Amino acid sequence: MLRHDALSDEASLVAARRPLFRLQDPLPLCAPRARKARLASLPGLHGVVSRMWDAGRPWVAVVLVGVLTGAVASGLDVLSGWLSDLRMGKCTDMWWMSRGLCCAGLEPGEQCRAWRTWGEIAAKEGHVVARALAQYGVYMVTAVLFALTSSAFVNVFAPFAFHTGIPEIKVLLGGYVMRGFLSPMTLLIKSLGLPLAVASGLSLGKEGPLVHVACCICDLVLRPFESLRGNGARHREILSAAAAAGVSVAFGAPLGGVLFSLEEISTFFPGSTLWQSFVCAIVAAVTLQYIDPFNTGKLALFTVTASQVWRGFELVPWLLLGVAGGIWGAWFIRLNEEWERIRRASGLREWPVTEVGALALFTAVVSYLVVFMRVPSSELVVALFQDCSGPDAYGLCECVPRPSLPARPREQGLTLGTQRSSSNTSSIVFLLLLTAFAKTLLTAATFGASIPAGIFLPSLTIGACAGRAVGLVMDALQKAHPQSWVFADCPADGGCINTSVYAVIGAASALGGVTRMTISLVVILFELTGAIDIVIQLMMAVMVAKFTGDYFSKNGIYETWINLRNYPFLNTKLDYRRDTFLARHVMTPVNELACVTDEGWEVSRLEALLDEEDYRGFPVVKTMRTRVILGYIGRAELWEALMIDSRSPQPQTTSATSAKLRPARHAADGRPWVSLAPWMDEIPVCMSQDTPMELVVQMFQRIGLRFVLLTRQGALMGLLTRMVRPAFPMSSVQPPH
Amino acid sequence: MLRHDALSDEASLVAARRPLFRLQDPLPLCAPRARKARLASLPGLHGVVSRMWDAGRPWVAVVLVGVLTGAVASGLDVLSGWLSDLRMGKCTDMWWMSRGLCCAGLEPGEQCRAWRTWGEIAAKEGHVVARALAQYGVYMVTAVLFALTSSAFVNVFAPFAFHTGIPEIKVLLGGYVMRGFLSPMTLLIKSLGLPLAVASGLSLGKEGPLVHVACCICDLVLRPFESLRGNGARHREILSAAAAAGVSVAFGAPLGGVLFSLEEISTFFPGSTLWQSFVCAIVAAVTLQYIDPFNTGKLALFTVTASQVWRGFELVPWLLLGVAGGIWGAWFIRLNEEWERIRRASGLREWPVTEVGALALFTAVVSYLVVFMRVPSSELVVALFQDCSGPDAYGLCECVPRPSLPARPREQGLTLGTQRSSSNTSSIVFLLLLTAFAKTLLTAATFGASIPAGIFLPSLTIGACAGRAVGLVMDALQKAHPQSWVFADCPADGGCINTSVYAVIGAASALGGVTRMTISLVVILFELTGAIDIVIQLMMAVMVAKFTGDYFSKNGIYETWINLRNYPFLNTKLDYRRDTFLARHVMTPVNELACVTDEGWEVSRLEALLDEEDYRGFPVVKTMRTRVILGYIGRAELWEALMIDSRSPQPQTTSATSAKLRPARHAADGRPWVSLAPWMDEIPVCMSQDTPMELVVQMFQRIGLRFVLLTRQGALMGLLTRMVRPAFPMSSVQPPH
Repeated sequence: MLRHDALSDEASLVAARRPLFRLQDPLPLCAPRARKARLASLPGLHGVVSRMWDAGRPWVAVVLVGVLTGAVASGLDVLSGWLSDLRMGKCTDMWWMSRGLCCAGLEPGEQCRAWRTWGEIAAKEGHVVARALAQYGVYMVTAVLFALTSSAFVNVFAPFAFHTGIPEIKVLLGGYVMRGFLSPMTLLIKSLGLPLAVASGLSLGKEGPLVHVACCICDLVLRPFESLRGNGARHREILSAAAAAGVSVAFGAPLGGVLFSLEEISTFFPGSTLWQSFVCAIVAAVTLQYIDPFNTGKLALFTVTASQVWRGFELVPWLLLGVAGGIWGAWFIRLNEEWERIRRASGLREWPVTEVGALALFTAVVSYLVVFMRVPSSELVVALFQDCSGPDAYGLCECVPRPSLPARPREQGLTLGTQRSSSNTSSIVFLLLLTAFAKTLLTAATFGASIPAGIFLPSLTIGACAGRAVGLVMDALQKAHPQSWVFADCPADGGCINTSVYAVIGAASALGGVTRMTISLVVILFELTGAIDIVIQLMMAVMVAKFTGDYFSKNGIYETWINLRNYPFLNTKLDYRRDTFLARHVMTPVNELACVTDEGWEVSRLEALLDEEDYRGFPVVKTMRTRVILGYIGRAELWEALMIDSRSPQPQTTSATSAKLRPARHAADGRPWVSLAPWMDEIPVCMSQDTPMELVVQMFQRIGLRFVLLTRQGALMGLLTRMVRPAFPMSSVQPPH
Repeated sequence: MLRHDALSDEASLVAARRPLFRLQDPLPLCAPRARKARLASLPGLHGVVSRMWDAGRPWVAVVLVGVLTGAVASGLDVLSGWLSDLRMGKCTDMWWMSRGLCCAGLEPGEQCRAWRTWGEIAAKEGHVVARALAQYGVYMVTAVLFALTSSAFVNVFAPFAFHTGIPEIKVLLGGYVMRGFLSPMTLLIKSLGLPLAVASGLSLGKEGPLVHVACCICDLVLRPFESLRGNGARHREILSAAAAAGVSVAFGAPLGGVLFSLEEISTFFPGSTLWQSFVCAIVAAVTLQYIDPFNTGKLALFTVTASQVWRGFELVPWLLLGVAGGIWGAWFIRLNEEWERIRRASGLREWPVTEVGALALFTAVVSYLVVFMRVPSSELVVALFQDCSGPDAYGLCECVPRPSLPARPREQGLTLGTQRSSSNTSSIVFLLLLTAFAKTLLTAATFGASIPAGIFLPSLTIGACAGRAVGLVMDALQKAHPQSWVFADCPADGGCINTSVYAVIGAASALGGVTRMTISLVVILFELTGAIDIVIQLMMAVMVAKFTGDYFSKNGIYETWINLRNYPFLNTKLDYRRDTFLARHVMTPVNELACVTDEGWEVSRLEALLDEEDYRGFPVVKTMRTRVILGYIGRAELWEALMIDSRSPQPQTTSATSAKLRPARHAADGRPWVSLAPWMDEIPVCMSQDTPMELVVQMFQRIGLRFVLLTRQGALMGLLTRMVRPAFPMSSVQPPH
């Protein structure tokens, strides 16, 4: 896996000419240092201002990214809301207003006359059936229309705008460059396509895509800051911060955003990144709260009123929910993967827009049948997370028999009462589980289709449905057998099981199973719900779900998609300590490597080397006999050196301290010669070939090295690079320009 | 700083014979790999069970540590409570009961007759003055008695049990070994001394020491698991988990514990550590909740009922609080440091127990004067964090004029009312600020004295006092000028300023300024208070406080103490990217190094080398001419090799693959020869001498390397090790055995 793989023909061509993926420098090397030194030497006020600006630039960029992310997220929220409302009716006075705005300013209880449903508009005095048909028709037509528009946008203008974007961001922050992924066009299309996709009623969320949007904004903001953008490490730091801002506005969870960036996104996370993420996430959250697109004035989207009292026996269903979440997550990933394979194997991928249209139609038809599927997922989650003390929106609480039931003779009353409630319970439990199952299938088909789509909200919904169902079953059991030793801890006046807590734990388990996030997931969930009292339960559920999920499949959904698309990526979360290999067991040995020596290379010979060999880079050694290492030159750099040389045939001077690489016949004989020193990495990291692989992998993971030269007693013995796979399936999502 | 320093004479002696600090292996190297291989080859059921046990052992240890930490923390809570109550009175029926237990089972409103204050006991029918004197006398005597006992315990039995312990744990997890710091005696003394210290009324907290207690428990639990304990990396992982459990039980913040361990404690944090911390923190929190020492059934200690509504102008006082927290933190650190210097310079350190006794007496005398100082800090914080809707324990809400004041003529009534309220406000504000100031001085003298003492609770209290004072001032201002444009956003019916939110933000700022923690501090605070709605404000306050504090002094309180005690430590949080040095600028060049060559060394010559040179290790090269690197041998290892050789004079066989280090005259001439191969590190990491220092530092920080050999074209040019300072001031806290 970690071998210095030769690329396939097609891919190597891409790599040599216009690399689609390119490894960035792990560290700011020569150029930034020279700039720093120049800045430090500037005299007087000009110097002070320049140095302040130099130190302040990242912060200016970070604050700008935060503000813009908050603003764009607010805009997206408003747009999604308006489009979703438009499927049900319109504001007769001002068509561009959402229902909330249209009906604003009314007294409580007053009917909103300005807002009319499509049924009312189409068949003003008509029959109820005509109304219903008009309503249903518009609902279906808009679903397909929105989905088609969104998908067409994506396919025509910005292929990278599809899907969630998080796998690509992980790859990006792993140190690879992906052209076009953060372009302004992608930003525009994703920002337009996302509200359309959400409003179409497809089983998808807007959270993951918002992270992508935030990263696009970051790239746009950084354009005037050439020195930040050109510096790989700095660029990635600010990208991490942008990702944190994305999560921050997606869930109203600034802290969760920082931790998400820390845990899930970033390969290595120095202190300053933490700070920039912190600032960016806060600025974005404050902006969102200031604009307040939902007019609620608070950030917590799904408020849970959890009682902190819980009984020991409840650990059993909670642990079971965790296990179920893990199993479901692994199953969902498999399902999603299989569907992607089918999509590729059948001709389906040739018709991406059609696929999305058909999916939207099917989703609309199926969803209209079940009340829990008809409503937007976010509203359903709100209802599922609410206990039965408040208003009961979808009849979720009707199954709970009121404790004030009049006492009746036992053989009749109680049995009847229990039967009635349990039959109601069973129907709701059935509906909830059906919703979870249907949504699983729909989401597995949607996530990966050619439309912006996140996985977070669907998983949350499915988990909450299942959790609430388990809670209802527990509640019914307790009500049916209040005297059982199991429920001995329950108070006599009922109110033992809080079904909303089960819903939250179910949601946590499902998310843990799918994303395999840990600490950031817990924080996000508890910023999302405000349920501080159940943090232990959430932690347990997420932990059990992750353990169970990892048992069935090692990769979370994002890693799975990284593999599916063959992105180059080194999973930093895997633990290589079980690895008993030494570096020499897996390295590419020196006799299979193409080395450049210091003995004498003419330009034509170097060009021939580039043509013949398709390695991504070449170690530079003194002689092939001693194999003393002078440096390493990447394929792209060698190519660039030769290009520049062919443009300016004057001999270039070499710095006195650098190891030179030049033909043996000197400039004296009149032939042009090339100094490769400026393009050569003169400080490659060398390790003994007997180093355990775990240490090598740590070098890749934690330091961000691209390659390690392996030696024995000072002589080059082999080479290990980060895994770089051929970029084959990327052709399907290659940018069109 | 990072040079391969020769140790001072005294210290090098310690290093060579019985090292007080010793660097652990950064990675499990040969021995664990061999054990793994042996395990993998075991056949049948025995093999399966052995492998399962091998994989499960860390988890068994982690769960055990969690349970024991929770149990011990509960015990400490009960003991502290009983001792604190004992200062005020005793349970007449059963003297071993705390006031809560003694008075349990009473109806609300019923008077507790079993509990009598000392005043009542001493002067049953006596005069009020006699009663007060008796009460006051016992209060003073117990304060001094408890403090003296605690300090004497520490000084006689376990010097390492003093102070918070967190600096030492940071050093430990940075890869150094400190003998005696985690011994069972330290555990016992710290567990006994801590409740005494808390009950003595000194200005200290029990949170930091609990982390130390958890780590001691960890070391005890690991004793039967020799293979875990011997493996440096594994040992540190489980120690990190124990630290998380310590914070988890100290604050009832399992999530905050994990993040504390991640941010503050651990040098590098692989995925499995995160998991073990997660599990350990949860198990500890559940145990604590199950035992429920406070009989409250909940984990959040200081519940805040924060309204989520806030107005733009409030950002100004909040930011000011952040800035003030940063400045205060820097000032406090300076003050604390100065006091430690005075303690050392004067003869005070020779009388540690006396110092603590005097301090306790002084604290008791001063504290009795001000109501806010007389009560235990934790109760004060609870009161400060409460808004004025509940019961008003310490008159904190009396200054707020009731909105139901009858309307009076403007020139009289309002002015009077305002005056009255503002005079009351100003007196409370004065008392709060006085309390903050006095506690600052007392804490600066206490933190570092020879008694277990944490810094968290005092800082929290001081910050909460200051924050509440600012809130009261804002409230008075708003009440006095309700028509001002500044307060235009405030509702007409009053209730604009929530002073409890100001207290929380003040506490966050103070803690941010002192500890310089960021994300873990926010999480701890919001697990501690349950104030999910003010997470943005908390994040801002902590951020501003850290920025401000960093401007004045780079180090937080823990790093300051690491420096004060001259512990060897590489701060992983400092950003070395501004560093324009190359490795060759700071390395110890090869001509100053003592190298061992492969040319021929007799045992006597090696012994002479050990005697003459006081380096901590020696590079092994082929010849001094080529300087081709064969490996590196540490001083301790070389010494060990020679010791074993002198015990068994038989020539030892060397493995065929290892580089051998042997005298030129072979065993053939009958003289004994030594193979150093088993003791030599054959896989040292080599880097070019032109490597930027930032990369080298990253190697130390993120990979945990101890040293790097620097080369040019394959030849050894120099050496860089982690900073190891002479252990001079440690002599004062050296274990007595």
